[in-house]
Amino acid sequence: MVRSVAHLGPRGTYSEMAALAYIRWAKLDTGDELMLRAYPSIAQALQATATGETEVTVVPVENSVEGSVAITLDMLWRLETLQIQKALVLPIVHAFLSRADRMQQVQTVYSHPQALGQCQGWIETQLPHARLIPTSSTTEALTHLQDDVRVGAIASEWAAQIYQLPVLAHAINDHADNCTKFWVLGRKASHQGNQTSLAFSLPINAPGALLKPLQILAAHDINMSRIESRPTKRSLGDYLFFIDIEADASLPNVKAALQSLKHCTETLKIFGSYSLLPIDNPCPSDPTTNTSAGAE
Amino acid sequence: MVRSVAHLGPRGTYSEMAALAYIRWAKLDTGDELMLRAYPSIAQALQATATGETEVTVVPVENSVEGSVAITLDMLWRLETLQIQKALVLPIVHAFLSRADRMQQVQTVYSHPQALGQCQGWIETQLPHARLIPTSSTTEALTHLQDDVRVGAIASEWAAQIYQLPVLAHAINDHADNCTKFWVLGRKASHQGNQTSLAFSLPINAPGALLKPLQILAAHDINMSRIESRPTKRSLGDYLFFIDIEADASLPNVKAALQSLKHCTETLKIFGSYSLLPIDNPCPSDPTTNTSAGAE
Repeated sequence: MVRSVAHLGPRGTYSEMAALAYIRWAKLDTGDELMLRAYPSIAQALQATATGETEVTVVPVENSVEGSVAITLDMLWRLETLQIQKALVLPIVHAFLSRADRMQQVQTVYSHPQALGQCQGWIETQLPHARLIPTSSTTEALTHLQDDVRVGAIASEWAAQIYQLPVLAHAINDHADNCTKFWVLGRKASHQGNQTSLAFSLPINAPGALLKPLQILAAHDINMSRIESRPTKRSLGDYLFFIDIEADASLPNVKAALQSLKHCTETLKIFGSYSLLPIDNPCPSDPTTNTSAGAE
Repeated sequence: MVRSVAHLGPRGTYSEMAALAYIRWAKLDTGDELMLRAYPSIAQALQATATGETEVTVVPVENSVEGSVAITLDMLWRLETLQIQKALVLPIVHAFLSRADRMQQVQTVYSHPQALGQCQGWIETQLPHARLIPTSSTTEALTHLQDDVRVGAIASEWAAQIYQLPVLAHAINDHADNCTKFWVLGRKASHQGNQTSLAFSLPINAPGALLKPLQILAAHDINMSRIESRPTKRSLGDYLFFIDIEADASLPNVKAALQSLKHCTETLKIFGSYSLLPIDNPCPSDPTTNTSAGAE
């Protein structure tokens, strides 16, 4: 059976780009031939790996402008079985795609809410009167272009190439170093790497109790590189905390800290230790050469 | 000049419901007659108050299931001039609106991404094959219903009443105590109340440095009720922290803590002290009696 990599589809999404980068790396590293497999939502892509339908799932976790991808964190907490095997960071360069001759013709812009947010300033300047319509992926936005010159979409130049759509403007993101971190999640832990992610709820319904876990990490000389709160969904003001630390969970000081954390948290989940994947050429130059399983 | 209250429109949104609750309270409290004024986005509603076009803006901050409303936090940090005058919490009860006779006829569901997220379980059970399409507000979703029995939308029962649309199912949110906190923001501070909100960036690009500010709050016996990180948008891994504390900023211990916070943060912004508005009847029973300025 050919093992596959789940991601948010359809073809041409940034998630597919990240999945392809992982596939190239896996081939060089272990000789494994993995296939792409697109899903209509991040939740469904994650479930595919949890149920064993795919080997791993590549999902966005955090963008440098728009912040966390809430559904990824919520699903990771809920699914229980998934472990982080790798992280990778892709530069995100948005293009404006449209069949219009001039920008002034465009009245409506479609894209994923994160992409619309990342190009907010550009849209305000270039298309101040345009109606903005969110879509479930940057690629889905392209289905609205058809032959209508009054419509535009924000996606990658790579998607424009795949779907043979005209690019009216390129690198339209407001922040030049816009990038997104992805996680590669599987049912097995990688058990190695200088980053560890975990999450916990607290025994008393007050984030004041958060100080204790942070003090434990500091006392064990562990640097926290990120903290993100998410609602437990039980009641307003009741949170889960997702924390990334710069340390391998197999080190003695980290083991000791995690042991102490158990005593001051309600539920503690360790999502594994992993390393950052080196990305040489994040944007595949020839989209026809990818190893798509044809599921998209 | 009639003073007005900006909110995310058009008519029938939960934001309008919160704005109406605030207008009713203001009338009882000060006799002030305020008018509603709808804007197409949260960002535009906030800008209206920042530029003096409206007296205040009522915006969602946080939902008990879907978490923070990122655009509200990002705009508050960016606009500089806005202060929180009041907070209010509305119960959120979603309804499923459609012209279909039977649920099985529905193939597509429109709603705001937060509402789709809050009814995810219900949708999976009742409409497992439906296509989910995000809209910019729950009310905008209703424009897609028209006479098409294959289409449904998630909004409040109140919106169904306003637009005279059939309700196929009610209270469809996955969590019964789903509620959203709103802030009333103005150019003046209220300067009183047992809640204070602030945000800061840190001098060194490492949230490990977050421990110090939290220790300062704890050392001054101040309970933190919420912490939320947002990207500074400078680079991945560089954050702002939004914090709510359970204390009035005019108290001596809070003054001292805020003074100390200045020394261990890069930029510190205090958004004011405020109290929670009591809500007796959050859902106006007769939508025709509201004081709409007709801007929607």
